[in-house]
Formats: sequence, structure tokens, C-alpha cells
Amino acid sequence: MKRVKVSNNVIRRLPRYLRKLDELSANGVSRISSFDLGQQLGLTPSQIRQDFSCFGEFGQQGYGYNVAALRSQIAVILGMDRGFSAILIGVGNIGRALMDNFCFSEWGFRLVSAFEIDPALIGTEFKGVPIRSMDELESYLAENPVDIAVLSVPKDAAVPVAERLTADGIRAIWNFTNVELTGPDSDVLVENIHFSDSLLSLSYFLSERRDEQAARDARAEKQH
Amino acid sequence: MKRVKVSNNVIRRLPRYLRKLDELSANGVSRISSFDLGQQLGLTPSQIRQDFSCFGEFGQQGYGYNVAALRSQIAVILGMDRGFSAILIGVGNIGRALMDNFCFSEWGFRLVSAFEIDPALIGTEFKGVPIRSMDELESYLAENPVDIAVLSVPKDAAVPVAERLTADGIRAIWNFTNVELTGPDSDVLVENIHFSDSLLSLSYFLSERRDEQAARDARAEKQH
Repeated sequence: MKRVKVSNNVIRRLPRYLRKLDELSANGVSRISSFDLGQQLGLTPSQIRQDFSCFGEFGQQGYGYNVAALRSQIAVILGMDRGFSAILIGVGNIGRALMDNFCFSEWGFRLVSAFEIDPALIGTEFKGVPIRSMDELESYLAENPVDIAVLSVPKDAAVPVAERLTADGIRAIWNFTNVELTGPDSDVLVENIHFSDSLLSLSYFLSERRDEQAARDARAEKQH
Repeated sequence: MKRVKVSNNVIRRLPRYLRKLDELSANGVSRISSFDLGQQLGLTPSQIRQDFSCFGEFGQQGYGYNVAALRSQIAVILGMDRGFSAILIGVGNIGRALMDNFCFSEWGFRLVSAFEIDPALIGTEFKGVPIRSMDELESYLAENPVDIAVLSVPKDAAVPVAERLTADGIRAIWNFTNVELTGPDSDVLVENIHFSDSLLSLSYFLSERRDEQAARDARAEKQH
């Protein structure tokens, strides 16, 4: 695919478009205008047209977007058709939650193996995914090139395990450890899940609501 | 606090500023210029000054920001000093991971109780947080007003449980179910954690890298 440099904000919106289009499909909507799509996503129609224009022409002036066609084009842009493989490092609570509830294949990924240090888990399978010993990591990766590693180990292990994965040739890490992994090797992509960012946004909005309510109450009080 | 309407993008950046300032503090940095802060966050200095100007004057021209002071001002803006209380609904893998690894108090929240339907868990405690029966939810909330509910129930239960929480007076939901909760009651704040958005961003960046590499390889091939 020919690549143009696209802004980070646009890229971050693509998965949201994809989810919305899946929802529209599920509700039997086959065509949608940039106006309606914008309304449902809290974006302006021109922002939506601009976002999509980064990747070529998707809609037809006056006809809106074909939901299924747009969905499949966005899926391709996101690399969902590439069959990326993933391994999961650390089958603790988060690791288990991902194996149990997160449908990697829905997003085009193949979860091929998990790795653990707990002898009770090594050699078992969870939802069809084998759990191997961390001791086997190097030999496994030598025989099975893997695209991304999902890092869900305890905090203390985050940096050493990330360094080991990098040394083993892993070039993309999906990081659930809440530890910054901006290592020396900028050749490695790191995508962080920061639960706290999301909670603090909620905290902001809730504070705002409370202050607005307090201001309304104060005004009402004055009028009495 | 006096409130001005601040754009969503600015609000979403505040937790990132907070994390970065914590990291700087931990590394013994007590003062930083908007230029250096911008470099470390991939933002322009003027964007940073603009973001902070939404909330008043933080820095001193030519002297940069006092890291500790800026951190505490952002914490106040985010509502971290309000002592918001939280309950957790559903002690499955995700719920347990949150109780085990996520430090609510670090972000100003008090996790006061969890609720479950599994009899084996009801009546137990996890890290000092009591796990109650879902049957006690209404009576508990009647006696203990709670600010936010963390929703980590199975997909099928997401909508009915969210409706029940709303009926019980909960006005903010931190949603881990991956189910859209845009209910009729827009009075309720919902903050979603979508793991897939993050994975798909990683997928995009990895695809981009691969395409760039392939293009380089093709050019090198031609020159031979």
C-alpha cells in the first residue's frame, strides 16, 4: 500500500470509526452520510471527510458512505488483513482476562502462544492457546517469527522482559504493565494501555458536572 | 473552581502531563521548560502553553514550569483531590486485575466495595476491599452514596447492570465491558476502555513500518 504520513490523531480515530461502522452494520444500516456519522461520533462532517481523504476517496458526493465498503477499507488501512501473530507474556489476571475475553482474531490477530514462569500453568492450554515456559521463549521465537508481544507481566519484570523480547527480534509490544518502556531501541513500537488516563478523564468530567451543579445551586439559593 | 469549556483533546492530554511530571519528579527534575516538556511528549511548546492557558497561568516566562507545582495544579483540575468513591461490579479476571494491580488511591479514588454474583467470592475480602453480593447493591448505595461504578461484568450483563446502577443513582461508569452503554440517560457519564482501539493503532504503525521496509527493499533490489 502506498503510504502518506498521516497525523496521529487521525490514526487514533480509525479504530473508533471501525467500531461505529460495525455497530451500524449490526443495526442494518448500509449507507451513512458524513453528517450523520459525525453526529454519532461527536465530530464535524468536514473533519470526517478530511480524515478519510488521507487515504483516498471513500464516499460519493451526495450519496454518503457505503458502510460495509468503508469498514473493509479501514480494516485494510489498519492492517487487519495482514494476519499478524501475537504472543502473550504473563498469564496473570490481565493476561487471563485477555485470553478469556479479548477476541484477537476479530481484529485480525492470531494469538499463537502464551508464556509464563508459574510451573502450575506451564504445559496447559487456555482457550486453545498453549502456555509455554519463559525458558522456551528464545527457541520458540527462533522457529516461529512473531509480530507482536503482549506484555502483561508484573511491574518489576516489565523492563527486563521487554529488553529480552527486543533482543529476540520482537519489534512491537502491546504494553499492559503501566511501566514506561521507552528503551534505547526506537526501532521497537510500544503501545501502552494506561488505565489511569481513562479514569482521570472520567474524574475530570465528573468534577466538571459537580461544579456546574454547585454553581446552579448557588444561583438558585441567591434568588430566594 | 471556575470552569471554562475546555476541548476534549486538551482534557485527554492532562493525564499524560501528570504521568510525565511524576516521572520527572522521580528522576529529580524540579523545573522544566515548555520546550523540553514538549520534546518528551511529542508536542510543540506552543501547544503545551496553550493547553495550560485554558486553566490559568502556570509557568513563568523564561523560567519554565515548577514540576511539583504544575503536577499539583493538574491533579486539582482532574479532580484528584475530591476523594471520589468507587465500587467495582464483577470480580472476574479484569475486576481482579484492577483490585490487584490498579492503585485507585494513587489517582485520588477510594475503592470502597466490590460486588459479585459468585457465592464463592461473596463475603470475602480482596486487598482489604469487601466483596458483597449483587443483591445488596441497592441497600448499600442507599446508605453509601458512591461517585463512580467500575463495570467489569461479562458482556451479556453489561446493559442490564448499567441500567440498574443508573436507577440506583450512579452518575459515572468506568466501562470495561467493551459494550456501548450510550443509554437514554445522557445524565450518566460513561468512560470506555477499548482494548481494541489500542491494538489497532499498534497494528497500523506496524503495517506502516513493514510497508516502508518493503519499499526500501524494492528500491535496493532495483539498484542491483
